[in-house]
Amino acid sequence: MIIAVDASGGDYAPQEIVKGALEASSEYGLEVALLGNQQVLDELLKKEENTDKVLVVHAEQAITCNENPVQAVRSKPDSSIVKGVRLVKEGGAAAFVSAGNTGAMLASSFLMLDRLPGIERPAICVVVPVSTAGPFLLLDAGANADCQPRFLAQFALLGSAFARLYLGIESPRIGLLNNGEEEAKGSILTKEAYQLLKNTGMNFIGNIEGQDILRNRADVLVTDGFTGNVVLKTLEGFGDLLQDMLALKQETTQPEGSGNFSKLVKNMDFSESGGSCLLGLNGNIIICHGRSKARAIKNAVRFAARAAAANVAGAIMNELKPVTANTVKEHLL
Amino acid sequence: MIIAVDASGGDYAPQEIVKGALEASSEYGLEVALLGNQQVLDELLKKEENTDKVLVVHAEQAITCNENPVQAVRSKPDSSIVKGVRLVKEGGAAAFVSAGNTGAMLASSFLMLDRLPGIERPAICVVVPVSTAGPFLLLDAGANADCQPRFLAQFALLGSAFARLYLGIESPRIGLLNNGEEEAKGSILTKEAYQLLKNTGMNFIGNIEGQDILRNRADVLVTDGFTGNVVLKTLEGFGDLLQDMLALKQETTQPEGSGNFSKLVKNMDFSESGGSCLLGLNGNIIICHGRSKARAIKNAVRFAARAAAANVAGAIMNELKPVTANTVKEHLL
Repeated sequence: MIIAVDASGGDYAPQEIVKGALEASSEYGLEVALLGNQQVLDELLKKEENTDKVLVVHAEQAITCNENPVQAVRSKPDSSIVKGVRLVKEGGAAAFVSAGNTGAMLASSFLMLDRLPGIERPAICVVVPVSTAGPFLLLDAGANADCQPRFLAQFALLGSAFARLYLGIESPRIGLLNNGEEEAKGSILTKEAYQLLKNTGMNFIGNIEGQDILRNRADVLVTDGFTGNVVLKTLEGFGDLLQDMLALKQETTQPEGSGNFSKLVKNMDFSESGGSCLLGLNGNIIICHGRSKARAIKNAVRFAARAAAANVAGAIMNELKPVTANTVKEHLL
Repeated sequence: MIIAVDASGGDYAPQEIVKGALEASSEYGLEVALLGNQQVLDELLKKEENTDKVLVVHAEQAITCNENPVQAVRSKPDSSIVKGVRLVKEGGAAAFVSAGNTGAMLASSFLMLDRLPGIERPAICVVVPVSTAGPFLLLDAGANADCQPRFLAQFALLGSAFARLYLGIESPRIGLLNNGEEEAKGSILTKEAYQLLKNTGMNFIGNIEGQDILRNRADVLVTDGFTGNVVLKTLEGFGDLLQDMLALKQETTQPEGSGNFSKLVKNMDFSESGGSCLLGLNGNIIICHGRSKARAIKNAVRFAARAAAANVAGAIMNELKPVTANTVKEHLL
């Protein structure tokens, strides 16, 4: 199984990306294809050991973080992002990991990969490590700022399948992020989504409010891409602040794992999780933070390998066959 | 100046409410009117000292936390909530503080108080104490789950005036909570709101992402009531979790103020702030958490007194006169 890694994308490319990919390769025994400038990458790899499972795929172009995503994807067919997604589509790689322009990753995936049946909009799904009782999934974390209620129900289907396959939870608890606990609470969007979720046959446990996000009430937390993005970044920002504070207090010298508090702080370091994946398309696409360093990339490559091993996209497709009929029923009734 | 306090609303009413109101009265020399059952309150007050600045206003009815707000307000004219808002409207009290049914507080205020010119929707404004560099305002924190872009611009006007009057910031920095930093990022709502905010003549500094909420980049953070509510509760939930963890680690025995970290943790206790206020109506209405105990109520009463002393509603009205013309201009151009 080959994991493709975008060596040209991210704030610390290519050095930290290459470093992280090499670490993942040697630590987990994975084959890694680095996409980027051949000459630059060869030069970097010369200095490294454990490169026998690493190959370089030359990408003549690179998409920068400020480019218009759709224009960039269309005008740069030889960019590392477009080539990486193409590798996944054509079966040359089991997954593609990039810390580059997120919009370009989305656009490239939308344009090239097949959509799963019954899913109108792919969503970014993040494994949030924060809860001390184990991780949960948050989606959509930013692919769709404006959503229809049925998109949220579709995200729930995707998240439920992913939680079962990736986290091994047999009947994942689906929660709807909302501004109140009662069924009647919410915006127009969430009130309608609640009714759809109630009738999908999933394990829908109702509304989850902000204060319960970290309380392990739901395995899959469904929301629109605007709210999901803001909430995720709020948690990240809090984690950063906490770590700054602890560094000031010189608590970082404490041994790891010295209790729930240390576990929480460690979990708030989002590089532990290392990536989010795009669900709803037939391909494993892993999107990393632009600020990812070697450790985050290493974890993202491991995440990609696990997602690919679980054949998530394929399994979700099977999972969705009966559901598609359900969704249609929803709209007809 | 009399501050009216709802002694019948909240999870710990009436005991904790009375206790907090008395503490505020004696500590800050404030006159307090307790609204609730006369007999019950007289009985409670008998056991207390420092009651000379406290009076009881009998309220025959009480609105519970699960009642439909509008129905409850209409059918219970003698409830503590309706009577409290009426006291403010008629000038009998300078402000009204309640930890009761938030929806009923909103409905009662909407129905009875005059709207400020140019403001179509009142908003809940919260003084968020979290940042170590001083508090900031978040609005709307829950009054309007579904917003039009111009409502967000109106919230910015309200927040800007309040920040100037209450926090003493001469030219408050207005930020728009968004899912990206660039002008072109966002939902349909935030993209349109951005354009309106750019042209209001306020000190608009652009988009603020989740990770920067606590970084003191804006003095006023504007958002729709759905996102605002979710984000605020997320922060609160994080604060709770942090305090649980610290309690487990028995760090709470540390002396207060032993550095930035302790300051952060203390600030994450939202009872320090004690209340949020409804802006956009001609009256000082302070909404507390249902779970408020004496300390939160005491702080909310102080907050109410400060807001009333600054004559916020009146001053905002003056502030808004030129702005109303501006808003009209926006819509005509």
